[in-house]
Amino acid sequence: MSHNTFGHLFRFTSWGESHGQAIGCVVDGCPPGISLTNDDIQTYLDKRRPGTSKFVTQRQEADRVKILSGVFEDEDTDGPRTTGTPISLMIDNTDQRSRDYAEIKDRYRPGHADFTYDAKYGFRDYRGGGRSSARETAMRVAAGAIARKILGDNIHIRGCLTQIGTKMIDGDNWDWNQVDHNPFFSPDKDIVNTWETYLDDLRKDGNSVGAIVEVHASGVPAGWGAPVYGKLDTDIAAALMSINAAKGVEIGAGFASAAFTGVENADEICMEDDKPKFLSNHAGGILGGISNGDTIVARMAIKPTSSILTPVRSITRDGQEITVRTKGRHDPCVGIRAVPVAEAMLACVLADHMLRHRGQIG
Amino acid sequence: MSHNTFGHLFRFTSWGESHGQAIGCVVDGCPPGISLTNDDIQTYLDKRRPGTSKFVTQRQEADRVKILSGVFEDEDTDGPRTTGTPISLMIDNTDQRSRDYAEIKDRYRPGHADFTYDAKYGFRDYRGGGRSSARETAMRVAAGAIARKILGDNIHIRGCLTQIGTKMIDGDNWDWNQVDHNPFFSPDKDIVNTWETYLDDLRKDGNSVGAIVEVHASGVPAGWGAPVYGKLDTDIAAALMSINAAKGVEIGAGFASAAFTGVENADEICMEDDKPKFLSNHAGGILGGISNGDTIVARMAIKPTSSILTPVRSITRDGQEITVRTKGRHDPCVGIRAVPVAEAMLACVLADHMLRHRGQIG
Amino acid sequence: MSHNTFGHLFRFTSWGESHGQAIGCVVDGCPPGISLTNDDIQTYLDKRRPGTSKFVTQRQEADRVKILSGVFEDEDTDGPRTTGTPISLMIDNTDQRSRDYAEIKDRYRPGHADFTYDAKYGFRDYRGGGRSSARETAMRVAAGAIARKILGDNIHIRGCLTQIGTKMIDGDNWDWNQVDHNPFFSPDKDIVNTWETYLDDLRKDGNSVGAIVEVHASGVPAGWGAPVYGKLDTDIAAALMSINAAKGVEIGAGFASAAFTGVENADEICMEDDKPKFLSNHAGGILGGISNGDTIVARMAIKPTSSILTPVRSITRDGQEITVRTKGRHDPCVGIRAVPVAEAMLACVLADHMLRHRGQIG
Amino acid sequence: MSHNTFGHLFRFTSWGESHGQAIGCVVDGCPPGISLTNDDIQTYLDKRRPGTSKFVTQRQEADRVKILSGVFEDEDTDGPRTTGTPISLMIDNTDQRSRDYAEIKDRYRPGHADFTYDAKYGFRDYRGGGRSSARETAMRVAAGAIARKILGDNIHIRGCLTQIGTKMIDGDNWDWNQVDHNPFFSPDKDIVNTWETYLDDLRKDGNSVGAIVEVHASGVPAGWGAPVYGKLDTDIAAALMSINAAKGVEIGAGFASAAFTGVENADEICMEDDKPKFLSNHAGGILGGISNGDTIVARMAIKPTSSILTPVRSITRDGQEITVRTKGRHDPCVGIRAVPVAEAMLACVLADHMLRHRGQIG
Repeated sequence: MSHNTFGHLFRFTSWGESHGQAIGCVVDGCPPGISLTNDDIQTYLDKRRPGTSKFVTQRQEADRVKILSGVFEDEDTDGPRTTGTPISLMIDNTDQRSRDYAEIKDRYRPGHADFTYDAKYGFRDYRGGGRSSARETAMRVAAGAIARKILGDNIHIRGCLTQIGTKMIDGDNWDWNQVDHNPFFSPDKDIVNTWETYLDDLRKDGNSVGAIVEVHASGVPAGWGAPVYGKLDTDIAAALMSINAAKGVEIGAGFASAAFTGVENADEICMEDDKPKFLSNHAGGILGGISNGDTIVARMAIKPTSSILTPVRSITRDGQEITVRTKGRHDPCVGIRAVPVAEAMLACVLADHMLRHRGQIG
Repeated sequence: MSHNTFGHLFRFTSWGESHGQAIGCVVDGCPPGISLTNDDIQTYLDKRRPGTSKFVTQRQEADRVKILSGVFEDEDTDGPRTTGTPISLMIDNTDQRSRDYAEIKDRYRPGHADFTYDAKYGFRDYRGGGRSSARETAMRVAAGAIARKILGDNIHIRGCLTQIGTKMIDGDNWDWNQVDHNPFFSPDKDIVNTWETYLDDLRKDGNSVGAIVEVHASGVPAGWGAPVYGKLDTDIAAALMSINAAKGVEIGAGFASAAFTGVENADEICMEDDKPKFLSNHAGGILGGISNGDTIVARMAIKPTSSILTPVRSITRDGQEITVRTKGRHDPCVGIRAVPVAEAMLACVLADHMLRHRGQIG
Repeated sequence: MSHNTFGHLFRFTSWGESHGQAIGCVVDGCPPGISLTNDDIQTYLDKRRPGTSKFVTQRQEADRVKILSGVFEDEDTDGPRTTGTPISLMIDNTDQRSRDYAEIKDRYRPGHADFTYDAKYGFRDYRGGGRSSARETAMRVAAGAIARKILGDNIHIRGCLTQIGTKMIDGDNWDWNQVDHNPFFSPDKDIVNTWETYLDDLRKDGNSVGAIVEVHASGVPAGWGAPVYGKLDTDIAAALMSINAAKGVEIGAGFASAAFTGVENADEICMEDDKPKFLSNHAGGILGGISNGDTIVARMAIKPTSSILTPVRSITRDGQEITVRTKGRHDPCVGIRAVPVAEAMLACVLADHMLRHRGQIG
Repeated sequence: MSHNTFGHLFRFTSWGESHGQAIGCVVDGCPPGISLTNDDIQTYLDKRRPGTSKFVTQRQEADRVKILSGVFEDEDTDGPRTTGTPISLMIDNTDQRSRDYAEIKDRYRPGHADFTYDAKYGFRDYRGGGRSSARETAMRVAAGAIARKILGDNIHIRGCLTQIGTKMIDGDNWDWNQVDHNPFFSPDKDIVNTWETYLDDLRKDGNSVGAIVEVHASGVPAGWGAPVYGKLDTDIAAALMSINAAKGVEIGAGFASAAFTGVENADEICMEDDKPKFLSNHAGGILGGISNGDTIVARMAIKPTSSILTPVRSITRDGQEITVRTKGRHDPCVGIRAVPVAEAMLACVLADHMLRHRGQIG
């Protein structure tokens, strides 16, 4: 990963600013012959879309994706299929309200990239955060939908929210089936009311809060990944940490493993149905940077949305001290919409490693 | 990063197995004209070296590094200087005891990469862990020493241990000056005795334990890093997660930020001496993937050494269930020796981003 | 360069098929603050545009480029300027005639990529050549226009045609001022009539012909490029050879140097105005992969257009022997329109190396 | 390719200077389980070795390669086999005569990289040309030997010399079996005497001469390579042009195709034994950047050795005009020893594309 490009063999390059004409990405390296329609991608974009509940931003974006290249259909192909050439995806920015940006143009909002973009580039497209806006993550979700197609039906990638602010789910209640039946992607239905009240209060206060996202990939065969700078967990860590507002990443037991002894941490192995079976999964499905066949488990900490109504001290471009108060349509908890983004990034890492493994090993 | 290569403009490729003839790396992209001697590198290798206390492995390796290329000296240069061409570094493996590897040859030690290397490659160099051994990290430290030279004297990189198992330091006692005066790189001198007793007990039990490493870089100017897949924090996360036994990575407040509200998390900004000053550093010195001029702070969770004397269930190469008990000279807490490795990786990321920034911006 | 991406620090990824909805590219790594308008790019596209004379394809494409991202303008910027983030460029395909592709769908035209795309990918977008169409080169020209902006006004890149089929220019007549005053980019005005008659005859016969393109870059400072796999001449060779129909590439004296003795080939050096001056330029401005400050000179052989009216033997997808005769609006000499493409690729290589040099050396 | 690294999936990084302690390379991405011994590599190094006839440099280097990592042998493996991890190769520099370098230290030899290395890096390792010496090509040959192992026995790569100075072989005499039976790798035995006399005279005059190398790869399946910046011919052109003293590269008919008409250039296709067969091979086995199953044919022009006894005008580091006369043990025609190097680079490109193809397509 570098610049605005993710991946090695499965790669995509994203472009576009929050309030420019459009955003898009170019997905390169996709194997040929894979069935792919706009709907295959739209399904995942709809999970990430703004405006789906009062707990996410009310910005109204249809977020309709268009496939501009790399897919071909004729009477012989039974629907559109990838050709192996670059797949260009684009979403028009339909909600570019004409508005007065004077407030943020010359002011640095704490926690935003306003200051650092100016420090690096000398000036910035300040409209809605420009390139640093989380709007870019729509293209990650789009690329991830293609990655899932490459991975095929035997690999299942799913994500959820395990913590909002100080409120954690009860792991004993974990039920993946619940995830799509509440506005928080929670696997614990019992916490939903708590989170609603909690977030409602924060939202009314103009405040925001952090969250923890967990993603799983099951069905990944043993052997993907590679030593020592191309480890599977290394690439997952990078992929998740590249998501806006991410401040931490864990694999398997993660930070908890720091408190474990070797005896506690050992994932013992037995045989089941003639195949190796791990009796626990502190490793998160990865050993020595290579998948072990168990479920891959990763977690990501998302900081609170920096846009809050409470006035905070800051400075202007020319070094005047001010107080800043950010109006606008913001997510009280960006962690919610980060769930489909984290799933997508995990899918992209796996698709890339699937192809890289196949390249070296056959 | 991919395969066995780190970095983009400042890059290195490492090679070698734990019990092969030697290990080494090739550092490419180093600016010319930088003074560089074996001693500049040896200093850092000595911090990581086995056998320095009873709390680290007793393997006796002199770990003497040789510079084989990329440095030139004549009567005009006032000592050896980098030429801008690849710097080849090598350390001979002097402690290759002839021994019976039958025990691990056909047996998968839980928590090790034995099983996954076989799953990927079909067979493996099992002597001492082969390529997956932490011995490889010596070359990271060596490359990191060169990275520090590139960064120059105004950027200070240092690391320490903040937690061993369940025993955390008291942050109020933090004193960087203590770090080099105890065998644990602890910044809190009051915890040293506790850790000694704790580790001694674990070691005698043939058990091991995890740890948390923290690294800081001060003096980094605002503006390094880049959106959106080449973020500075993304690359730090990848670099740390690529270290053996790492299971989690944090930037700034990290996972704690998940529990924060936006008001709590805001790093307010004021002016001091005509320069921006952040009143807190939850961001860990990075906003939108770009350094903000404040100290860069990262943390890494290291799992317990997997080699333990307690028998654990496992399987053989051909699928027989067994119990495994790992003898040998192992670190009871690999987290200790991970400190100089984490420092080195942070230095390498920063050197790479310094050159990348200079490339794009001038 | 790999997949559909050119470059390292200055990079672009192109996408799109000849008869899809659009073609485009994403230019990444551009320094910020550079003035850039659609017109800056359109100027060069117009040189490459079809339909400008009877000697190039009559396909009617307006080829109007749109900048979709990476450029920002407000009342402070004095026109649009690059922001340092990805610049997305798009050209709509306006001349997608509905037509019967049955003729080429199942038939392999000799000299085209029809057979090899099928061999690699299993099927292909056959409409107008799909991804293998020279239409893709429009995006190279667009990216090259941005590269020129990065290089600035002191570096001049220009190209011309020195040979069409068996008819070569007379080097003694070389006048760069002539290049834009004839439909062939010829620097020798005396050959223009000869080429007109020659090409007219070939075109009427439904035949085509090859050509040689020469490109120069003057004003490049000594020191750009790098040993040993990132040499400046290596990257120029790759960039030119990646252009459709290219079959050979030379630097400086090129193949002629094979017949030279060392005495004949030596580019002697003297001092002029306190600067080194080369008395000849067999090196083509590059020594050891690094620019020497003299004019960079490269040449490229372009094969004849493969689409000809004369029937030739070929096969169908299912292995039937046939004869193929290619109708349509084809360039009798694709070498002509390759001139602005070659200039663009040279500009892209130089912009990339300028940034890479600055990254390593400062 | 960039910096000192070749390739994408099959990659190697070379290091070392002509008169340093050693030269070496690290080959990464090699598939596991391939039988590999020192002798497999030494065979090819011996073809390139200095001192084999009076027509090549008399420098005496044993050039014994050592494999330091990435290969493992035990009683189960039936000889050493690649493990899939980095293969480190090293050759000690045994012939580092202590000598007075004052002559070249401050003087720029025309045609050498002396001037440009100083221009780029500010100073240089001038001993024997340092990093810019053709000695580096030994590592290309070593890496190429591994590439051949990856490609397997069905792909045959071979090279020869078709021209020395003004003396070309007679293509009608072409016999691959002759190549190893004369000191010039000539496929035409009738030209051997001519070349001997010609080179002897040049050598006695202290002069040198250029040459043309041709390389073939047969047995490459249709489908390797990729549009549009990762074309097979693009990568071959880059690989050959990166060889010291290369000034031109051709694929198939190459520059001759510029003079062809489309009718003359068409490679007609028929069926033979139920497989496509090309009736000619102007394409050189590549269409649209993808192999077509026919023999891949490439050619490279090598300039005369720049080290000549005839005095030529030049300058010193501090800008004084001088005349330079290069003593020492030089090849009168470096093109001869470039033959095994060109073969090796072709093998490396093909191995990389084999793995990349397998990665994307399966």
